[in-house]
Amino acid sequence: MSRVYNFSAGPATLPEPVLQQAAEEMLDWRGTGTSVMEMSHRGKAFVSIAEQAEVDLRELLKVPDNYRVLFLQGGATAQFSAVPLNLLGSAGSADYVNTGSWSKKAIAEARKYASVNVVADGGSGDPMAIPPQSEWQRDPDAAYLHYCANETITGVEFPEIPESGDVPLVSDMSSTFLSRPLDVSRFGVIYAGAQKNFGPAGLTVVIVRDDLLDRASAQVPAIWDYQRQAGADSMLNTPATYSWYIAGLVFQWLKREGGLEAMAERNKRKADKLYAAIDGSSFYRNPVDPLARSWMNVPFVLADDQLDGTFLSEAAEAGLHTLKGHRSVGGMRASIYNAMPESGVDALIDFMADFERRHG
Amino acid sequence: MSRVYNFSAGPATLPEPVLQQAAEEMLDWRGTGTSVMEMSHRGKAFVSIAEQAEVDLRELLKVPDNYRVLFLQGGATAQFSAVPLNLLGSAGSADYVNTGSWSKKAIAEARKYASVNVVADGGSGDPMAIPPQSEWQRDPDAAYLHYCANETITGVEFPEIPESGDVPLVSDMSSTFLSRPLDVSRFGVIYAGAQKNFGPAGLTVVIVRDDLLDRASAQVPAIWDYQRQAGADSMLNTPATYSWYIAGLVFQWLKREGGLEAMAERNKRKADKLYAAIDGSSFYRNPVDPLARSWMNVPFVLADDQLDGTFLSEAAEAGLHTLKGHRSVGGMRASIYNAMPESGVDALIDFMADFERRHG
Repeated sequence: MSRVYNFSAGPATLPEPVLQQAAEEMLDWRGTGTSVMEMSHRGKAFVSIAEQAEVDLRELLKVPDNYRVLFLQGGATAQFSAVPLNLLGSAGSADYVNTGSWSKKAIAEARKYASVNVVADGGSGDPMAIPPQSEWQRDPDAAYLHYCANETITGVEFPEIPESGDVPLVSDMSSTFLSRPLDVSRFGVIYAGAQKNFGPAGLTVVIVRDDLLDRASAQVPAIWDYQRQAGADSMLNTPATYSWYIAGLVFQWLKREGGLEAMAERNKRKADKLYAAIDGSSFYRNPVDPLARSWMNVPFVLADDQLDGTFLSEAAEAGLHTLKGHRSVGGMRASIYNAMPESGVDALIDFMADFERRHG
Repeated sequence: MSRVYNFSAGPATLPEPVLQQAAEEMLDWRGTGTSVMEMSHRGKAFVSIAEQAEVDLRELLKVPDNYRVLFLQGGATAQFSAVPLNLLGSAGSADYVNTGSWSKKAIAEARKYASVNVVADGGSGDPMAIPPQSEWQRDPDAAYLHYCANETITGVEFPEIPESGDVPLVSDMSSTFLSRPLDVSRFGVIYAGAQKNFGPAGLTVVIVRDDLLDRASAQVPAIWDYQRQAGADSMLNTPATYSWYIAGLVFQWLKREGGLEAMAERNKRKADKLYAAIDGSSFYRNPVDPLARSWMNVPFVLADDQLDGTFLSEAAEAGLHTLKGHRSVGGMRASIYNAMPESGVDALIDFMADFERRHG
């Protein structure tokens, strides 16, 4: 078996020790004679797995006691519907920041249920940037303020948490979640699909401040009703048990690796060296404002896009996989989540320099 | 490693060869150097896995060409919302048969979106039975007729497909799906959560007749919009890729085992011998009308419920796990899905006879 460096934007590479443990435990979890996949979600064994995952996640993120942690199904796209259905309350409108494709999808979905006020349009232009908060046009009656912390497709990331005042701040954190410490107390709701930074597709973590649990629409589908799921420990219906278990293994791996402070250091170092390699070359280019560059998703274009195909096939031969940029952007994209080892980034940088020497 | 017989109602036992293959392929799927869990859902490798799963499922169930097969998230409970949101169209009402707990949940959820007409109440009483169709009070304007083919909690199963005339027939088949051949052409929509008979929790197969794809409400959440998901090959958002892969391995196992005809024979034999053992004893009793007895979920009570705890602990020692009945029913329940080998049912019957000799 020879593992490759997998730069996929999601589903994405997972820590090898997590996969090894999952393989070893597949037919028999700790002497129970059953796979985690086969366990009743209400049985003692799975409940212990689920609870430990929540304990570990709370410890990693230092989640305050007045927040509930939910493990739901449907990915971030489900939350695009669930957020307005849970939070609009008697207000008819909500504020959304648009910084790219995922912001736009959240906005389109929210428009099914709410009057959406787009406070600012960013994430396009060259370089792509985030409009300064001083220019945002907020609606004083908005039920909440929503933003996408990291646009996976374009690699545009908020360097800081916006200031929302008394209005609940809601964030799609899918591709930045657990990449660094986070002040959860600044938020009303945080949600993140697992398939970027902590597990298999099909699981979404939602962290909700408990005073926001009482305003759901009568039309909210039961499985996305934050209050009912909080009351049922995320088991109103059968949860995605195996994905929850894998996420728990990732949380334990993060703790062994030193937690989110250590991750932040490593992730910043990985991103800094990759951007430096790009900026130091006239052959590669990153189209994002340096103030808004993602630590997790690094898109870059070649000076001559006729070379894209050659770059991708030679990279794959060198064990550097899934570097093709999103179809809406073109070029390349290296997603370097927590589980991408620094050696993978080093190998990519070496390959890029070598490719430039041969083709530049 | 010693595997047990796991009679859990769901998540439930899976075929051991499927788990073995999953474990072996965990770190490196067929020389790709990546786990299926890490694959981009849009990459060639995963698309081939997804397509093969659909081909195999279509072959097993003989799904007609005018039906679309969707692999969605959220479980059957999600479909309790998705069905009315997709099918009500301009009609305001829908017909539901109530045969037990899962019917009731589907009805409660549908009431958020529709005027629900309960055509008949069954599944209670002693013995629990299904009201004959001649007594059903149908609404001539109903958009569809919904029933739960197999009530997992009480073990009440429809022996035949109801006749719905021109009205689309919709069925929650979660715990009977793939247990025997099925005439799909009789249905408008069939849905089934994977965690009973074909995979991990977090995946739901929805089979929709294509003329029903055009009537969704403007409020349907995007990820449950049958038409959009059909147009996107179930990849409007990131699907539950790993669960889809495991389901595909189960479909291949079913084909190797002889398909649904062979499954039906085996399942009937397993159920018949377990019911015969129960009926032949005055110590055990099954509370369901013999005409409506499930092949998949066999509840039984002991003559003296003071012995329940002893029964469960002795059974567990004998390697027969998760036999406790649902909290709403009490007693015992043996779920004997496709993946429960006949030897497991034989072992249960032997244990029951021995227990009766010692305690009866």
